[in-house]
Order: sequence, then structure tokens, then C-alpha cells
Amino acid sequence: MADYLRMNSDELKKEFSSVKAKYDELLSLKLSLDMSRGKPNFDNMDLCDDALCAVNREKGFKDLSGTDCRNYGGMDGIAELKSLFGEVLGVPAEQVIVGGNSSLNMMFDTVAQGMTHGFGAGPWGLQKNIKFLCPAPGYDRHFGITEHFGFELIPVYMTAEGPDMDAVEELVKDETVKGIWCVPKYSNPEGMTYSDNVVRRMAALKPAACDFRIFWDNAYAVHDLYDEGDCLLNIYDECLKNGNEDLVFMFTSTSKITFPGAGVAAQAASPNNLKMLKNRIKYQTIGPDKVNQLRHARFLPDMAALKLQMKKHAEILRPKFESVLSELNNQLGDKNIASWSKPRGGYFISLYVYEGTAKRVCELCSKAGMVLTPAGAPFPYGKDPKDSNIRIAPSYPSVEEIKKAAELLCIAVRYAALEKLL
Amino acid sequence: MADYLRMNSDELKKEFSSVKAKYDELLSLKLSLDMSRGKPNFDNMDLCDDALCAVNREKGFKDLSGTDCRNYGGMDGIAELKSLFGEVLGVPAEQVIVGGNSSLNMMFDTVAQGMTHGFGAGPWGLQKNIKFLCPAPGYDRHFGITEHFGFELIPVYMTAEGPDMDAVEELVKDETVKGIWCVPKYSNPEGMTYSDNVVRRMAALKPAACDFRIFWDNAYAVHDLYDEGDCLLNIYDECLKNGNEDLVFMFTSTSKITFPGAGVAAQAASPNNLKMLKNRIKYQTIGPDKVNQLRHARFLPDMAALKLQMKKHAEILRPKFESVLSELNNQLGDKNIASWSKPRGGYFISLYVYEGTAKRVCELCSKAGMVLTPAGAPFPYGKDPKDSNIRIAPSYPSVEEIKKAAELLCIAVRYAALEKLL
Repeated sequence: MADYLRMNSDELKKEFSSVKAKYDELLSLKLSLDMSRGKPNFDNMDLCDDALCAVNREKGFKDLSGTDCRNYGGMDGIAELKSLFGEVLGVPAEQVIVGGNSSLNMMFDTVAQGMTHGFGAGPWGLQKNIKFLCPAPGYDRHFGITEHFGFELIPVYMTAEGPDMDAVEELVKDETVKGIWCVPKYSNPEGMTYSDNVVRRMAALKPAACDFRIFWDNAYAVHDLYDEGDCLLNIYDECLKNGNEDLVFMFTSTSKITFPGAGVAAQAASPNNLKMLKNRIKYQTIGPDKVNQLRHARFLPDMAALKLQMKKHAEILRPKFESVLSELNNQLGDKNIASWSKPRGGYFISLYVYEGTAKRVCELCSKAGMVLTPAGAPFPYGKDPKDSNIRIAPSYPSVEEIKKAAELLCIAVRYAALEKLL
Repeated sequence: MADYLRMNSDELKKEFSSVKAKYDELLSLKLSLDMSRGKPNFDNMDLCDDALCAVNREKGFKDLSGTDCRNYGGMDGIAELKSLFGEVLGVPAEQVIVGGNSSLNMMFDTVAQGMTHGFGAGPWGLQKNIKFLCPAPGYDRHFGITEHFGFELIPVYMTAEGPDMDAVEELVKDETVKGIWCVPKYSNPEGMTYSDNVVRRMAALKPAACDFRIFWDNAYAVHDLYDEGDCLLNIYDECLKNGNEDLVFMFTSTSKITFPGAGVAAQAASPNNLKMLKNRIKYQTIGPDKVNQLRHARFLPDMAALKLQMKKHAEILRPKFESVLSELNNQLGDKNIASWSKPRGGYFISLYVYEGTAKRVCELCSKAGMVLTPAGAPFPYGKDPKDSNIRIAPSYPSVEEIKKAAELLCIAVRYAALEKLL
């Protein structure tokens, strides 16, 4: 009988001493493993090295419009990438702004713009008790931005279909609620994709605040691990059907397509929102790094090239995910102390350990040389009310390391659960 | 007798008909010239093409610390460029933040941070009647940023030594005055360098507002046209002597060293200010484009390499400046209707035409196919009280075009003055 919850005290003690022996053995290996952040590995980045050489004297400096990309100008990016990101985000090219190397930076700037200039109802910074909805578990850096700007963070729990829309629909009746963070496809950290129903209800929201905005961070739009990827409904089309096109800001980037630190980011919005965004950007910069944009346009000339690139990434990433999932299944499948997501894309696996032990699991792993995202990080204010969720990022270590890391993680999960049960 | 102010009516009419004939001749050439912005020419950018190939598979992706620059991280930039920009700005490397492609963006973000989080005295955005000092003529994009954020722009007139410090010292007694824009070396558009005395008085300011900051945009720090360049006193050293090190934010970039749109920008500040800046940046981004930083570090490994590069730029720019200055001297030197700066570096010549005719001069030039910076642009709210200043940017056209452009400009200056006098 492997179900820990059905074991008697003697059985638990015996199991604990066996698990502890294995843990001590792993401890003695003095491992050094990092599963803390969704960082691509060298292998993935090496797939894109040709991009670095795509702009030089021989290949020329001009984009298709004939503009020399080395000089100033072109506040909203080059046409080639507007088209490509438009296809990725499912909006017309002219509704896209192509920026620098970081979509997080574009999100931060958009929230900052809300604070100082607002989105049609005066600056958020001059309004009282402003709040932001945070589907949890979610992306810690999203929550960090709105916390930095003084929003109260309101957790909305994730269901199997996406954020709990009953809760969202209720919460947006409060006009101090100004927005919601979403990672709609292969969500961080759940690895799940919002259902059509969730996207439709999201696009149909009628918030009390006219300056409420959905921050739709489609970071993993094309990041399938398998040929048959998840399908995400086009939120902008749904917004249009509801006369709600100003409701959503969309974001994406090539951080996990080309280079995490040296990719290209983009945002898209309705014509009305774009006008507001550009009225900031025209003061903020004379233009983004168009040379890096041109490198990307030449390396990824169309969606077919982009998809081919993602297939190559998937070949590297898939065995890592499968390795973790297989170990989780082998060690924890029958223990009744843990559950986990089985993503078909993205960068994360979300693991739910025995309640009240997530912090302890991270501590045990850390002692044995493995860095995990701190327990609680995917929740507003870093507080997981059940102390149960752990975000696993299998992308950075090698497959060999991943196997060791998953073994250690599972042992730690069992160790902590047994401590608690005893 | 060439002095227009001493001519009688008949002489003026005769001169006007001769000038008009020349203008009509130029008009018939259907010129297409651009002296509107400080944009480097292709020749200048071509000098830097090797930078584009400085990071690739063969040359490697690691900076001196061993970090793979393609991945996430390194919020404040790579060490090599902190050192280089530290030397350019005259501060220790650890006080430098190396960013993206635009120092204007760093300035905008710093003002935005003042608005939402302030610099030790609460957010500027929550304070009433905030004001910003704008040495005029100055850089229109500086003024634009503070206008965008709702500051009242207070003009401070430029003297031969820099901003009128008597006025500045008086104005900062008002605690609603929060900062001043400065381009201290080869200033935009005057092309002059602040005297030691001005820098010392600037560094010794004791503003009523403890959150007052000098925005010291040292955009042309190394941009000499001649072997003997202007010397700018180190403001940070002077601030230190006065216990005033939190008074100043310093900025610079390689926009006019490598590529205008694809260079690297940096800012520097006191340890106390740095702490505040980094507390924003850690939420704003996971890091700048370190690959582009590494390209720059390899292309410009030290100050000697940087200075050599600037000498090459000067060889291209110097004849353009001299061409304009020579034409100004030939056509306008004895007319008593115009004066102009004779910069030894930077990107601009500032021309003062007969009062009340600057707009008309731009209009005449525009009709004949030449774009100039709109008259008034270098003044707060775009309003030159004397309608006399014109910013000349000789960098972008070829030497051949420059000669034609200067000829047309001088004819237009004479044309407009004669219209006014008649």
C-alpha cells in the first residue's frame, strides 16, 4: 500500500527512514542544479545563432521599406515584425507596436502610463484604493509590477479552464478594480491554456471601471512541445464581437524563440488604445533597436520559419518535461500527497505537494544543492495560502541534470509529507 | 556698404531684388535637403560596421565575467561597459547603469519614476504646481518629456558660459521647482560647453526641494570636431565637494559613436540615487540587451579605441560644420542681421537671425525643398520669444548638399530680414 494517507504510524516511520536514507544519499552528491526560472539552455540559444549575423555590411542594413535600420526613427518598429507579431497575436499588423528586448518592460511601461496618464478616466495614480486581479498561481513578475505601483493585489484562483470567471465577473463590478494579469496559453506556472469559454467570458466583461484593462501576456503563443498544440481562442476577435476592443492589451516576445535577453518584444491593442500608447512612446524614445528587429525579420521571415524554429526548440525541451513528468509519476503517482499539471507547451510544470509542506520541500532541495522558485512566489505578495504549490522550470538544466533534479524533488516531497504526517 | 541696418530704402529694395533673384534660382532647382535633426550620415555609421559582427558563434557569447550574454539577467548591464561609461561620465564603474538603445528613454523613465515614486519626498505626481527649468534654447525632446508629465516649463536663458546661474539660483528657492535639463558639453543647439564656473555653481545648488535633480545629459561628452576639444568640469566631483552627490543624474550613449538607433545608453548617479533607480528597474525588466552591450564592449574595448573612433567621425563631420560656418560668414558676416555659434564639437550650430524672422526663414527654406528644425522648437512650448533662433544640424546631408543647404539658408535669412526692414 503506497497511499501515505492510509498508512499507520509504523508504516509511515518505516517509509520515512527509507526516504531519509535516499535523501541523505543525494545530499552526499553535493549537487548543483537550477530549476528556479524559465531560462532556456545554451542548446536552445545555439539554434538561433544565425540571427546574430543576419545584419552586416554584406547583407545590408535596410528593411523592406528601404529604411537604414541603424539610424534613428521608426517609433513603433519595422513593418516585417509588425506583420509577424500580428500573426502571432491574431491582430492586423497596423495594431502592433514592436519594441525592445523585453515584453515585461512594455507591460511595466503600460502600467506606468496608466499611473501617470490613465486610460481615459484620469491617472490611476490619482485614484484611491486601486486594485488589480491576479490569477494565482501566476507569474511573480506580473504581480511585482502592480505591487510596485501600489495596487492592492486581489487573488483569483485558477480552475482547470483558466481563472475563475465567476469571481472575475463579480470583482469587476468594483470600479477600483483596474485590470487583470493573464498568461492565457501554457500559463505560467500551470502550463494550461484558457478554455474558449473563459476567453469568451473575459472578452465580454463589462467592468465598472472604463479604464479597466486585461493584460494578456501571450508569452507562450507558439511554444508547443508537441505537433498538436493547445488552441487559444483569439481574444481580440471576441472583444470586437462585444464592442469591447479597448478592453485588452496584448503582449508577446521572441525571448523564448531566439534569445531571452536579446530578442524582440511586441504589444498590440485597439486603435483607440494604440493612440494613447503612442502618445507616450513619442516622448519616451526616438525609436527601438531596429537593427535587432531586422536581424529577427531576416531570421524569422514568416510564420512557417517561426514554427520550424519552435519545433527545434520542442525537440530539446520535450525530453526534459517528460523526464520530470515520468519521475513525478513513478515516485508520487500512488502516494496521494501530490498532483501536478501535464503541460503540452510553455516553460513550466506546476506541482501541488501535501498542504503546508511546499516551503519545506524547497528548503530540503536547497540543502541538497537545487534551486527552485521560492515556494509562494507564484501568488500575490508571495503568499500561497495552502503552502502547497511549487513551480518547476525544467528548461535550463540538461536532461541528465533534470533526471537527478526530479529524483531529488520527489524525494523531498515525500520527506516533507512524511514529516508532517508523523 | 553691407550692413542692412544702415541701408536706406532704395538700397534695401535693390538688395531685396538681388536676393529674391537668387532665391528664385534656388527654388527652381527643386532641392531636397534635410538639416532638421542631429542624425549621423551613412558614412559615420559605416565606420562602425565591425561592431555588428563582434558577437557570433566563432567569437563567443560570453562577457569577461563568463556570463552568456544571450540569456536573461544582469539588470544593470555588463561590467565592461560600466567601466567605459564610467570613464566617459567621470564616475566609478559601480555607479553606472548600462541600458538599452536610448538615453532619452532612460531620462523619460527616470522622470516617470519621479512622478510615481519620487526621489525621497513622495511622488512628484502627487505634488501641486510642479515646475522644471529649461535652459533655452535647448533640446526639444527634453522639454517634451517634462511637458508630457505636466510640469510647468520655466525657461532659463543661455549665456556665453551656460545657463544663467543667477536665475537658476533664484528659481530653485521655490520648492515646486523639481529639476533642470542640461546638455553641458557642446550643448544642443548652442554647441557650447558650460564654463567651470557654471558647473561649480550648478553642483553647489541648495534647492528648496530635496527631490530636485539635475538631468545632466552628457550626450556629446567625447564628440570633439578638433584635436583640442572643449573641457567640461566633472560635475559629480564638484557635487561630492559640496556634499551634494544626490543632486545629479548623468546620462550618455553611443548613439553618435556607433549607431543612432542601435547603440547603448547609460546613466550614472550617487549610491543613494542608484538604490532608488534599481528599485524600479528590478520590476521593469529582467535585463537589457547584453548581446548588443557585448558587441559594443568588443568594438570599443577602452577609451583609446573610443577616442580613435571619434577622430574618424570628426573627419567626416568637420568639413560639414566648416562648410556651413564659412557660408554663414561669407553671406551674413557683414550684414548685421545674424549671429551664430562656432562649436568645436557636438552636432549643432545655433543661428540667430533678425528678430521676428526665424519662422519666415524656415518657411522660405521649406518652399525651396529644405527641412529645418521648426523655428521655436528649442524653446519651452516651442515658443521662441524673439522668433530669432534656428537650429542647424549639418551632420546628415553630404558635404555637397551642405554647401547648397547653407547657401539657401543664408539667402532665406537675408530675404526674410529684408522683407521685415522694407
